[in-house]
Amino acid sequence: MAGSTFGTLFRITTWGESHGPALGVVVDGCPAGIPLTTDYIQAFLDRRKPGQSKFTTARRESDTVEILSGVFEGYTTGTPISLVVRNNDQRSHDYSNIKDCYRPGHADYTFDKKYGLRDYRGGGRTSGRETIGRVAGGAVASRILECLRIKLTTYTKAIGPVSIPSDAYDYSVINENRLYMPNSEYAQQAAAYLEQCISDQDSSGGLIECIIEGMPAGVGEPVFDKLDASLAKAVMSIGAVKGVEIGDGFSVTSSKGSINNDSFISENGQVLKQTNHSGGILGGISDGSSIILRAAIKPTPSISQPQKTVNTAGENIEIAISGRHDPVIVPRAVVVVESMAAITLTDLLMQNMTSRIEYLKNIYL
Amino acid sequence: MAGSTFGTLFRITTWGESHGPALGVVVDGCPAGIPLTTDYIQAFLDRRKPGQSKFTTARRESDTVEILSGVFEGYTTGTPISLVVRNNDQRSHDYSNIKDCYRPGHADYTFDKKYGLRDYRGGGRTSGRETIGRVAGGAVASRILECLRIKLTTYTKAIGPVSIPSDAYDYSVINENRLYMPNSEYAQQAAAYLEQCISDQDSSGGLIECIIEGMPAGVGEPVFDKLDASLAKAVMSIGAVKGVEIGDGFSVTSSKGSINNDSFISENGQVLKQTNHSGGILGGISDGSSIILRAAIKPTPSISQPQKTVNTAGENIEIAISGRHDPVIVPRAVVVVESMAAITLTDLLMQNMTSRIEYLKNIYL
Amino acid sequence: MAGSTFGTLFRITTWGESHGPALGVVVDGCPAGIPLTTDYIQAFLDRRKPGQSKFTTARRESDTVEILSGVFEGYTTGTPISLVVRNNDQRSHDYSNIKDCYRPGHADYTFDKKYGLRDYRGGGRTSGRETIGRVAGGAVASRILECLRIKLTTYTKAIGPVSIPSDAYDYSVINENRLYMPNSEYAQQAAAYLEQCISDQDSSGGLIECIIEGMPAGVGEPVFDKLDASLAKAVMSIGAVKGVEIGDGFSVTSSKGSINNDSFISENGQVLKQTNHSGGILGGISDGSSIILRAAIKPTPSISQPQKTVNTAGENIEIAISGRHDPVIVPRAVVVVESMAAITLTDLLMQNMTSRIEYLKNIYL
Amino acid sequence: MAGSTFGTLFRITTWGESHGPALGVVVDGCPAGIPLTTDYIQAFLDRRKPGQSKFTTARRESDTVEILSGVFEGYTTGTPISLVVRNNDQRSHDYSNIKDCYRPGHADYTFDKKYGLRDYRGGGRTSGRETIGRVAGGAVASRILECLRIKLTTYTKAIGPVSIPSDAYDYSVINENRLYMPNSEYAQQAAAYLEQCISDQDSSGGLIECIIEGMPAGVGEPVFDKLDASLAKAVMSIGAVKGVEIGDGFSVTSSKGSINNDSFISENGQVLKQTNHSGGILGGISDGSSIILRAAIKPTPSISQPQKTVNTAGENIEIAISGRHDPVIVPRAVVVVESMAAITLTDLLMQNMTSRIEYLKNIYL
Repeated sequence: MAGSTFGTLFRITTWGESHGPALGVVVDGCPAGIPLTTDYIQAFLDRRKPGQSKFTTARRESDTVEILSGVFEGYTTGTPISLVVRNNDQRSHDYSNIKDCYRPGHADYTFDKKYGLRDYRGGGRTSGRETIGRVAGGAVASRILECLRIKLTTYTKAIGPVSIPSDAYDYSVINENRLYMPNSEYAQQAAAYLEQCISDQDSSGGLIECIIEGMPAGVGEPVFDKLDASLAKAVMSIGAVKGVEIGDGFSVTSSKGSINNDSFISENGQVLKQTNHSGGILGGISDGSSIILRAAIKPTPSISQPQKTVNTAGENIEIAISGRHDPVIVPRAVVVVESMAAITLTDLLMQNMTSRIEYLKNIYL
Repeated sequence: MAGSTFGTLFRITTWGESHGPALGVVVDGCPAGIPLTTDYIQAFLDRRKPGQSKFTTARRESDTVEILSGVFEGYTTGTPISLVVRNNDQRSHDYSNIKDCYRPGHADYTFDKKYGLRDYRGGGRTSGRETIGRVAGGAVASRILECLRIKLTTYTKAIGPVSIPSDAYDYSVINENRLYMPNSEYAQQAAAYLEQCISDQDSSGGLIECIIEGMPAGVGEPVFDKLDASLAKAVMSIGAVKGVEIGDGFSVTSSKGSINNDSFISENGQVLKQTNHSGGILGGISDGSSIILRAAIKPTPSISQPQKTVNTAGENIEIAISGRHDPVIVPRAVVVVESMAAITLTDLLMQNMTSRIEYLKNIYL
Repeated sequence: MAGSTFGTLFRITTWGESHGPALGVVVDGCPAGIPLTTDYIQAFLDRRKPGQSKFTTARRESDTVEILSGVFEGYTTGTPISLVVRNNDQRSHDYSNIKDCYRPGHADYTFDKKYGLRDYRGGGRTSGRETIGRVAGGAVASRILECLRIKLTTYTKAIGPVSIPSDAYDYSVINENRLYMPNSEYAQQAAAYLEQCISDQDSSGGLIECIIEGMPAGVGEPVFDKLDASLAKAVMSIGAVKGVEIGDGFSVTSSKGSINNDSFISENGQVLKQTNHSGGILGGISDGSSIILRAAIKPTPSISQPQKTVNTAGENIEIAISGRHDPVIVPRAVVVVESMAAITLTDLLMQNMTSRIEYLKNIYL
Repeated sequence: MAGSTFGTLFRITTWGESHGPALGVVVDGCPAGIPLTTDYIQAFLDRRKPGQSKFTTARRESDTVEILSGVFEGYTTGTPISLVVRNNDQRSHDYSNIKDCYRPGHADYTFDKKYGLRDYRGGGRTSGRETIGRVAGGAVASRILECLRIKLTTYTKAIGPVSIPSDAYDYSVINENRLYMPNSEYAQQAAAYLEQCISDQDSSGGLIECIIEGMPAGVGEPVFDKLDASLAKAVMSIGAVKGVEIGDGFSVTSSKGSINNDSFISENGQVLKQTNHSGGILGGISDGSSIILRAAIKPTPSISQPQKTVNTAGENIEIAISGRHDPVIVPRAVVVVESMAAITLTDLLMQNMTSRIEYLKNIYL
C-alpha cells in the first residue's frame, strides 16, 4: 500500500510530483446531487497558492484546477471526481546538489532508503505541492459539510514565539493578513519576526488551530476509528506536522479530573456542556460542542545558510540551499489542515449513518 | 464501519465489554513460523492488570489469556490468532446512577447519541478493559518485532506536575516502581502527588513516552499512511489520549530551521544524524535513528467528588461516582501505548516489503 | 493481509481450526437496536451441522454458539458481536497420513508452500468447519435483512446428473428433505445417486441456487464493488465453489441481445421488468427484481478409494483416506452460500446509504 | 464507498465518463525500479480501441495515454502513477431518447434509482469506455508480472454458438484475427455469425478464457481473499460479465471426486499434478500449475431493433437505439479480462510476501 488514498467511504487518492506535468486527486464516494463548480474548488486552492506575499516561495503557479469527471450539469453524479492542476513553472533548474545529497530535515534520504531511487526535482512527491490534491479534495468535502451546516474556521495561532491568546481572537481579520492570523497586531509582530528569520537565513515553526462548529453529536467510530484518532492521522500525515492535540491537548498532563471534566447541563431541553476541555470529543465521538484541533508545524527545512550533510556517495559535505523558500510553512498549511479535517469529518459522518437500524429503515422502508 | 479493526496487513480486531462474559482480539496477518506461547502474551497483559497497587482499581481480575486458534505445536501458522480473556469479577453492581445519567468526561452521552442505547455496566465497550484486546494483539506484534531486533521502551514521563527530564532517565528502574517511571525519586514524588489526589477525591493526568530502537530506515507509506500519521492514529485511539507528538513535537512551533534540522553525518560508511529533533521520522518514513513518541493522557474522569451533570430524562442533577477508581490512568496505559505502537510498526514494516521490485524478485525468482 | 475479514461496513472476521479449541467470528458494524438471540443464530448453524443424515460426516458436534459481546438486554448495541463455537469432538486421531502427505483436491500442498508449515489435524483452517464463522455471521446479516423485509431462499438445484428444472420447484419442501432440494422426487433420485457414490467409494458435485426477494433497486457500487462482483467474491471464497453466475449466467454466451435484454414495463406507477434474464442486477446495481445466483460445488475431495499422490518427502505414494466423509458437500453448503450472500447484501445496502446528499440531510438535518 | 478502487497493496482507482473531457486511472502501490514507458501501456489500450473492424463501434478515438506522475527517467518511483486518456470524439449528439428513457439491458434505470440523476451522454460512467482505466492499470500490473516471469494468455473461446474446443487451440493466431480467437477457422465462422447478427439488428454473447502460466505456488489469502475469489470479483466487476469459473468450473456439478481430484506426482524433485481440473488453485491458493479462468459475456444490450421500455415519466414506450454499436462485446473485452486478472495476481503476490517470518527476515536482517 503506497498510502496515497485517505478515507473509507469518502476517499481521496492524490498523485503528482513537484516538477512532473501535473498533480491531482480523485475523490470517490461523493454523494450525488451536490452543486459543485470549478470556482468553488479554486477558492480553496488559492488559499495555498505560492507567490502571495514575501513570506512564500516565488514560484509562479496559477494552480488552476480542472474538473475531468464526476460533475454533470453543475451537480455531482456520485461517480469519482477527478481534479487536475497542471504544473506551469517547470523551468529547467540545476538540481545537481539536491540530486546527489540529502538535505537536512527533508525526506531525500528516507526516500532513497525506501525506494532505491527518487524524483529529485523539487523534492518530487515530497514537495509541499503534494498538498494540492489534499486541498482540492478538501474543497469537495467542505461543500458537503456546508450542505449539513457544519463550519470550519482555521487559522494561524502562533508563529515562532508570537502566539495569540484565545481571548484575543478576532475571526473577521483572518483573511485580511497574509499569515491568516485572527488578530492584526499579532500578525504584524509575527511578520516582523519572519523578516528577521529571512535576514538570518533561517525559518520558523508555528501552530495552526481549527474550530469546527455545528457537528452533530454521535460521530466517530469506536474503538480504532475514533473521531480524534482519525483527525490525528489526517493532520499528522501533512508533511511538516510534528504534533496533534484535541481540546486541552498536552495541558491535560498536569490537569486534574475535577477541572478537566466538562459538566453537562440541560438548557431548554438541550444537553450542553458548561466547559469544553474535551474539545468536542468524548470517547472518540463528537459530543455536540465545538471541536478544537491544533497542529504543530515545524520550521521550513529549506534554509539558505550552510548546513552539514552527507552526499549519496557517503561523503560528509556542506550544503547551501539556493532559491527563495517560504520562511514559514504555517500560513499556506492552514487550508491544508482544514482540508484534511473536512475530509475526515465527511467520512465519519457517512460511516455513522449505519449505527442504528432505524437509519436503515428510514432509507429502505 | 464500527471501527473495531486496526491495521492493513497486520490487523487486530478487538471485541468485548467491561461486564460481558469476555473480551478478546483476533490477530490476522501474523506470519507463519514464529514461536508464540500463552506466557509471552500473558506477560504483556499483566502489565495492565488491575489491583497491582493502591493507584489502580480494586477490581479483581486475573486477566488470563487463552489462545483459541492460529498457533500449532508452539508456532504461528499464518492463520488468525484468536485470544480470549474471560471476565471474572462480574459481581452484580448497582448501576442505577450510571444507567440513567451521563458521567462527565465519559462517553455515556455520546454513545447514547450515536447508538440510541448502551451497555451501561461498567462503561460497556468504553471501559478501559477494552484495551485488553489491544495489549494481547500488541504482544503478538512485539514478538514479530523481536524477531527483527526492534526494541520498544515505554514509560511514564510525567504525572501531574512531576515530570522527569530526559537526562535523568534510568531505564533499569522502569519496572521497579508501580508507576513505570524511569527514575525512582521522581516516582516517589509522583506517588505522593497521587496520594494527595486520592485524599482530594480527585485524579491526575500524565505523559507517556515510547522510544523505538533498531527500526530500519525506509518504513512508512507516503503520503497518507506515513509512519508518524499511523502512530498518531494508533495512539490517539486509546481512550484517554488527548495529544500525540513525535520527536521535538509541540516545541517545534517556536523553533527555527537552523536548530530543528538534523545534520546527516557519515561514520564508518553509515549515514547517521548528529541530532534527533525529527524523532526518527522524516517525510513520514523512518530515518534509521530512534523513534520518539509521546502521548498526553487526561486525568481519570471517574472521581468521587460530586459533579454536576444531566440524566437521561434531561434533568440537571448531581452525581457522585462511587467505588475506588484509578487516580491516574497513565501507569496502566504504558503497555497500551507500547502495544499500539508495536502493531503500527509491524504493519508498516510489512507494507514496505513491496516498495521495490527487487524485493519481489528476491522472494519469487 | 491474511484475508480473514470480509466486508467494508458490515464486516465479519472469522477464525478457528478444525481440531483447535474453538471456532468463531467477530461481526463488526452491526447497527444498534436489533433484537438478537442465541436461538436465532443457532438455527442457522443447525442447517450446516454434521451428523444429520447418512450423507454427512459422522463427527459429533453440537455446534452450540455463545454470544460473548455486542448484545445487551436482547438488543445489538452497535459494538462488535463475538460469537464462539467450541469444538467437542477432538478425539485423538491418527493424522500420520495427512501429516506427511498431500491429499489430492485438498489444500495441504498449497498451505505448505504458502506458510512452510500447517495444522494438519482434520485440515486445520481449510476444513469445512471454517464455515461456522461465516454462517454465524450470516445469521446476524439475515436478521438485519429481515428488518428490511428482504428474503433469501437457497436450495440444492442439482446433485451430480440430477438437476431440478425451474418449473418443478416447490419451495415448501426444501426443509423436508436432507438434501435441501425444492422437489421431493428429485431429492429421492439424488439420494439414490449418492448411495451409489458411497458404494463406489466416490463423491458427487452439485449446484446451489439462491433467490433474493425484496431487494430495493439501487444497491451496488460501480465500478469495482458491483453487487454481482461482490456476490461473486463472497461465494467463490467458499472452499468447494468453482463457478458463480448471475441470472442467465453462462447461457448468455450463446444468447442474443433481443432475447437477453429484459424489457421494462410500467404497471400501476411501478417500473417492472417483463423478464429477468439479468438476475436482478443491471450495471452491477440491483434493479428491483429478484436476484438469482448460482454456485457450482465440486465433489468432496475426500474419497476412500486409493489415490496417487506425493508425500512431504517428495516421494510418489498411494493414499486411502479413512473415516466416513460427506459424499457431497452441497446440502451443508446451502446455508453457507446464503450466509455469504446475506453478508454481501447487508454491506452493500449500508454502502448505498451515502449515494445521495438527501440521505445525509435526512439523518443530520 | 463509491467502489472506484480495486486492490489492497497494488490498487487502481479509475475515473471518467464516456463523454466527459477524459478518463483515467491512478495506480498506487507499484514498486519502484520498474522500466515503464507510454508505449508499453499504449499497446494494451490499443487492444481495446474502437474502430478496428466492422464488429466494433465507429467512434473515432486514438485513446492516447499520457503518464502524469510516478515515472522518472524511465523507471517507476514507487509513487502513484496517474494515467490519462482524453476523449476526442465528443461530438454533440442527440441524447434525447437516452436522456428520458431506460434502455433495456443497460444501467440507466439502476443509476437513476441509486443516484437520483445520471450523466446520460453515451452512458456516462456505465459506458464501456470505463474500462480504459482498467486496461491502463492492467498494463502496469502486467509489466510487474513480466518481471516475475508470469505470463497471461487471453482469448475469445466462443462467440454465440461458435465455440473452440481446447484441443483446437493455436495461440499463435490469436492476434491475427480481429476476434482474438485461437483458431482461424472458428474465427471465420464467428465472423459469419456476427454478420448475420448485424443484419438481424441483433447482438451476440460469448466466452473469454485466460490462462496464466508461471504463477508460483502459495499465492492467495485464506479464507476470504482467496485467489479464485479475488479473480471472480475482479472479472465479474466488468460490465457485461454474468458468470465466472475456474478450472473445470460449472462442469464439476456433475463430476465425481475420483475424476475431479488431481493426483500429485513427483518428477525430478518437483511436485506436479497429473491433471488440472482445479485450474491451478487449491483451497484458494495457487498450486503451481496453470491457472484457468473463464468469463461469460452477455450480448451487447444496444441493438437497433425496436424494444419496449419505460421512460422517466413512467410511460410505456418503444425505443430504437440509433448509431452503430459493437454486435459483440467479447473481442474488446479480452484485454479487459486479462487486465483485471493481472491486477489481482499482482496484488495477491504482494500480499503473500508477509506469509512467513523468514520473508521479513530476508528483507530486514
